[in-house]
Amino acid sequence: MKAAFYERNETIRIGVCEPVAPAAGQVQIRVAYCGICGTDMHIFHGKMDKRVAASQIMGHELSGTVEAVGAGVTHVKPGDAVTVMPLDWCGECPACRAGHTHICQKLRFLGIDTQGAFQELWTAPARVVMPLPTGMSLRLGALIEPLAVACHDNRLGEVKAGEQVVVLGGGPIGALIGLVARQRGANVVVSEVNPGRIALLHNLGFETINPKEVDIAQAVEARTGGAGADVVFEVTAHPSGAATMTQLARTRGRIVIVGIFSQPPPVDLFRCFWRELRLIGARVYEAQDFQRAIDLIAAGTLQLEPLVTKVLDLPDLSAGMHLLEQGGDVMKVLIQCNPEIK
Amino acid sequence: MKAAFYERNETIRIGVCEPVAPAAGQVQIRVAYCGICGTDMHIFHGKMDKRVAASQIMGHELSGTVEAVGAGVTHVKPGDAVTVMPLDWCGECPACRAGHTHICQKLRFLGIDTQGAFQELWTAPARVVMPLPTGMSLRLGALIEPLAVACHDNRLGEVKAGEQVVVLGGGPIGALIGLVARQRGANVVVSEVNPGRIALLHNLGFETINPKEVDIAQAVEARTGGAGADVVFEVTAHPSGAATMTQLARTRGRIVIVGIFSQPPPVDLFRCFWRELRLIGARVYEAQDFQRAIDLIAAGTLQLEPLVTKVLDLPDLSAGMHLLEQGGDVMKVLIQCNPEIK
Repeated sequence: MKAAFYERNETIRIGVCEPVAPAAGQVQIRVAYCGICGTDMHIFHGKMDKRVAASQIMGHELSGTVEAVGAGVTHVKPGDAVTVMPLDWCGECPACRAGHTHICQKLRFLGIDTQGAFQELWTAPARVVMPLPTGMSLRLGALIEPLAVACHDNRLGEVKAGEQVVVLGGGPIGALIGLVARQRGANVVVSEVNPGRIALLHNLGFETINPKEVDIAQAVEARTGGAGADVVFEVTAHPSGAATMTQLARTRGRIVIVGIFSQPPPVDLFRCFWRELRLIGARVYEAQDFQRAIDLIAAGTLQLEPLVTKVLDLPDLSAGMHLLEQGGDVMKVLIQCNPEIK
Repeated sequence: MKAAFYERNETIRIGVCEPVAPAAGQVQIRVAYCGICGTDMHIFHGKMDKRVAASQIMGHELSGTVEAVGAGVTHVKPGDAVTVMPLDWCGECPACRAGHTHICQKLRFLGIDTQGAFQELWTAPARVVMPLPTGMSLRLGALIEPLAVACHDNRLGEVKAGEQVVVLGGGPIGALIGLVARQRGANVVVSEVNPGRIALLHNLGFETINPKEVDIAQAVEARTGGAGADVVFEVTAHPSGAATMTQLARTRGRIVIVGIFSQPPPVDLFRCFWRELRLIGARVYEAQDFQRAIDLIAAGTLQLEPLVTKVLDLPDLSAGMHLLEQGGDVMKVLIQCNPEIK
């Protein structure tokens, strides 16, 4: 069968390999769609070569159908539509013992620390294979994983109806966070500088602020009667976002740290103290967030289709990477690993 | 009557002035003891000259007895022992309307933005004058205000019995935070570099870590079975504290920002994300924290007396300032404003 291998130096090789038969407690999945994540881009650009070996099969945002199950697997059967919560936790470290298995201190991320889903048949631990409701679009099913991130971020940020939310950074995750916040009844404004993304955010019905054109702190103060935002999501991972986030939040406001900072940026801890702000780190998702994402897609209330910029076949994974590199109005690129499954 | 006037250039002038008769809704207090706060030191050193005018009477950590009450004041009467929660809020800004009057966006701090208690008779708004239980030591009564800070910090940090707490910085506020955390049943270790303060912390029964001598992250990891601390209090207001705090907290651990940073330090937002840490800004206190501090002192369970390094008369306020400048084993200096009241 076909698989896409990352071979270092921004090179993806389409090759063949043997499917992994599902052992006890495993499920073999015929992959329908698998999205390209920002982390896949980082790997592609060689920024994670210390963690990721050559001939890595990436991919962790997938939908598919069960091909076969190993011994002891009863919650899904061949033919079922499924997705995978791509986390493999140890169950024994202090974080796991405290119930935070999603941030296990020895967490293995499927598709980064193990082989992933950019192949025709992928075998995953049964405990993280989740069935999809009958009739759900497999194309949208590939958005469950990033949507689960947005559900987790909103849950940890305790976004409530009527609250003012500011999302700093309107890429795929920022847009999904905004969609979930709006679904929870919040007023959402997205800060973004890229014209292509601004246009797409407007198509999704979001108000936007371009911090290169207006004073964002003044703009947020004006729209909140001088109070500031209830919740700010920092999704830029840029020092400018870290500098802005504390300016925007109201007294006792929440700031959710979603962006992955490569260096510790200056943070206005005086403002944190002065306004009694709360900074909340939020990483991946828990099972309840994954289920919430499945339910939201099943309910059909979120405008997700405009986020899918392009669908490509597995041999075009490199082309998808290059498309995403351009930024602009490109949001989500999905890879069809078995084009006969729609 | 005598008062101590801050006249800029590290100069305190002892002079006379007319007592302010209590208007409606005010209480005139014969000040017994008033502690010198770190903020008073900042004013003395000229660092707050933009906010504080010459001839300022400082002082906001006081105990005393009611001398007279203005019209409409019924909750205290002449002769009652009292303290004052030194906050004056507007009641109308978004913070006040949200119920956070203690961090009012136009907050006036009594003794900083108004005349304070380093005088024989001080007149304060009745709504923040709080009666002391019969028989409470007025000397310890002057510790209520900083103890209320520690109660607020512990409450916002949600410190629970059995938790591991690390206090970064073992000055007066750090020591009080540690005492309150211990009273709540937590295991407390204090990080401090000053030998005089370390000795005093040992006298109070605290374990200490000197981060100049040992790797504090390793030390905390070792004592928590690799988990990290449940709650970290950042009380140093130093970039080294900001760098250390994120290293020490467990997954989903809480970091309470108590120190007042003059510049935004680098903060490891990657670690915040990775471990889903929560940073919690905590400023002054609410009425419930003040009442809790009064109750704790009344119960006599905290070892507060060792924190009082020196008691001086009002004319010796300058000497008290210079004593505190030395740092070392000097913790709290109290000023007796009416030596006949004990």
